[in-house]
Amino acid sequence: MTENSGRTELGELGEFGIIKHLTKNIVLKNDSSILGVGDDCAVIEYKNKQTVVTTDMLVEGVHFDLMYMPLKHLGYKSVMVNLSDVYAMNAVPKQITVSIAISNRFSVEALEELYEGIYLACNKCTVDLVGGDTTSSTSGLVLSITAIGEVEASELVRRDTAKESDLVVVSGDLGGAYVGLQLLEREKEVFKTNPKIQPDLEGHDYILERQLKPEARMDVPVLLKKLEIKPTSMIDVSDGLSSEMLHLCESSKLGCSLYEEKIPLDPTTINMAREFNLDPTVCALSGGEDYELLFTIDLKDYDKIKGNPNFTVIGHMTAKSAGANLIARNGALYPLTAQGWDSLLKKDE
Amino acid sequence: MTENSGRTELGELGEFGIIKHLTKNIVLKNDSSILGVGDDCAVIEYKNKQTVVTTDMLVEGVHFDLMYMPLKHLGYKSVMVNLSDVYAMNAVPKQITVSIAISNRFSVEALEELYEGIYLACNKCTVDLVGGDTTSSTSGLVLSITAIGEVEASELVRRDTAKESDLVVVSGDLGGAYVGLQLLEREKEVFKTNPKIQPDLEGHDYILERQLKPEARMDVPVLLKKLEIKPTSMIDVSDGLSSEMLHLCESSKLGCSLYEEKIPLDPTTINMAREFNLDPTVCALSGGEDYELLFTIDLKDYDKIKGNPNFTVIGHMTAKSAGANLIARNGALYPLTAQGWDSLLKKDE
Repeated sequence: MTENSGRTELGELGEFGIIKHLTKNIVLKNDSSILGVGDDCAVIEYKNKQTVVTTDMLVEGVHFDLMYMPLKHLGYKSVMVNLSDVYAMNAVPKQITVSIAISNRFSVEALEELYEGIYLACNKCTVDLVGGDTTSSTSGLVLSITAIGEVEASELVRRDTAKESDLVVVSGDLGGAYVGLQLLEREKEVFKTNPKIQPDLEGHDYILERQLKPEARMDVPVLLKKLEIKPTSMIDVSDGLSSEMLHLCESSKLGCSLYEEKIPLDPTTINMAREFNLDPTVCALSGGEDYELLFTIDLKDYDKIKGNPNFTVIGHMTAKSAGANLIARNGALYPLTAQGWDSLLKKDE
Repeated sequence: MTENSGRTELGELGEFGIIKHLTKNIVLKNDSSILGVGDDCAVIEYKNKQTVVTTDMLVEGVHFDLMYMPLKHLGYKSVMVNLSDVYAMNAVPKQITVSIAISNRFSVEALEELYEGIYLACNKCTVDLVGGDTTSSTSGLVLSITAIGEVEASELVRRDTAKESDLVVVSGDLGGAYVGLQLLEREKEVFKTNPKIQPDLEGHDYILERQLKPEARMDVPVLLKKLEIKPTSMIDVSDGLSSEMLHLCESSKLGCSLYEEKIPLDPTTINMAREFNLDPTVCALSGGEDYELLFTIDLKDYDKIKGNPNFTVIGHMTAKSAGANLIARNGALYPLTAQGWDSLLKKDE
């Protein structure tokens, strides 16, 4: 990870030393952050607002592979993944806590790199790191991040409040993070076979960034407010469109109809999916990690969002009895499944 | 962990199934818990109070050993350890989130046992479990818990506000959890040599409970309020008296004098320490995991606390220049060290 010449062992600093070293430059930026790292707890004050809390755990070998995920990107992504959940409540993240279990195969410099990414994400979204825990692990790296945000009670958007005939809308485009991962996996295999071959990643910036450096859609709640739209329900797309849509349907006790032809796909996603013999629609439905926002709006708000380049209307909510379905380009109807269309992933199988 | 006959594989339920299964009986008990498990975030509302947040990560093989720590106890202890940090701010815990990374060597029944302990601790302290994350791990079990609590701004007690000549007070007694651990380690070694020998744990309930089922001192903030005492600073004893005292001194930019003869020790702790050829004082100073509260009070409050069986005055704060010292029974002065008196741990060495 780092050159041997500049390597400082974790043991040289000790637990308290490491925390102090990694958090010494923190300047709290939010009025609500009363007290940060260094006491038994952080202290936060939200005056008459509701607080939202979300937590995510990322495990080496399960959620990330350090062979192609640089530590700085890992830190950045871990934070963004959590903040995405806060934006999905139509709330604004203000604080995070970061807990890390790390083995001594990592150096202090490696941990610094990880924190560089964490701080970069915090700065981008004006979020304060207010606490955490650094501990040793017997094997892999484990990251657990908790994000805390604020929202006016009247602005909060939940999952269980969609209504029948509401339109289903998604921000950005889908499937890119998944094909980016396929590309990284392929180049890793090539590298393992012959370490002298340079990875062929040229010209694939977009899908690689979607996988390695995802951005939480902090702009969406702001955009929606400007458009004077309050979504009737919202969720972020972490596990794929299909899985998230099923969550909205189940929570709101409704069904839905999504139109395959409406699902937004970037041309580079389509091209790379074809290179891997994958159906781009399936990548969007089941790939996950796009961190776009999926929401429903009242029909009367359609004119406000129509033609907006940030959003695509991809379907509508139906009665529960109608089920949750995808209407394919050929008009055929496929029930959405949470398990991710595994059987369909390879087009020619 | 569980009998094969009643074993359900984690994969049979899937990630969402497991979370639903483990959280289906939750009833939110605090008015401030607006929305619990099941959305992108939990929602909390504190009206004009300050929020405190703390997080801890526990790693198998580092913080616990499942050979002698039953999963139910592990769940209970993991929660108590976090709540202890909230009480140490003179605050009241209201919500927790629990993230777990677990390998498939555990069954659903094992996870249920873990959660049984978690819910038991939550019920004891009237805390709502409002969110979390359950994920797979490639090897050991990792638990990350975040606790959130509330406090009036005027009641908050920090680490950095002790004053010179304040008295140093500790609740309960110290060192028990450490000698309990020594006993468990010894019986584990005996068991490894000859699995037919039953562990000799009879008559050691107190020190075993101190190690396996610690209680966060939720009664202390209440007691102090009744006594009309607001501590000038406070911390919980997780790493041993010495380490915590140094935190208070460093944060408050002061020194201290602690008196060895005043350190509260349970007779069973003293006896077991002697059996292991350990100095009981050293067990209190460096053992850790007692989860008592260590705090400072103004001299004028001495009469209010004097003779109270819950508290012991063990010393006083001094100028920083005087250093942080222990005054031994023989009058000799020893500087407190964070590393835990390692060289002194074996009396006869």
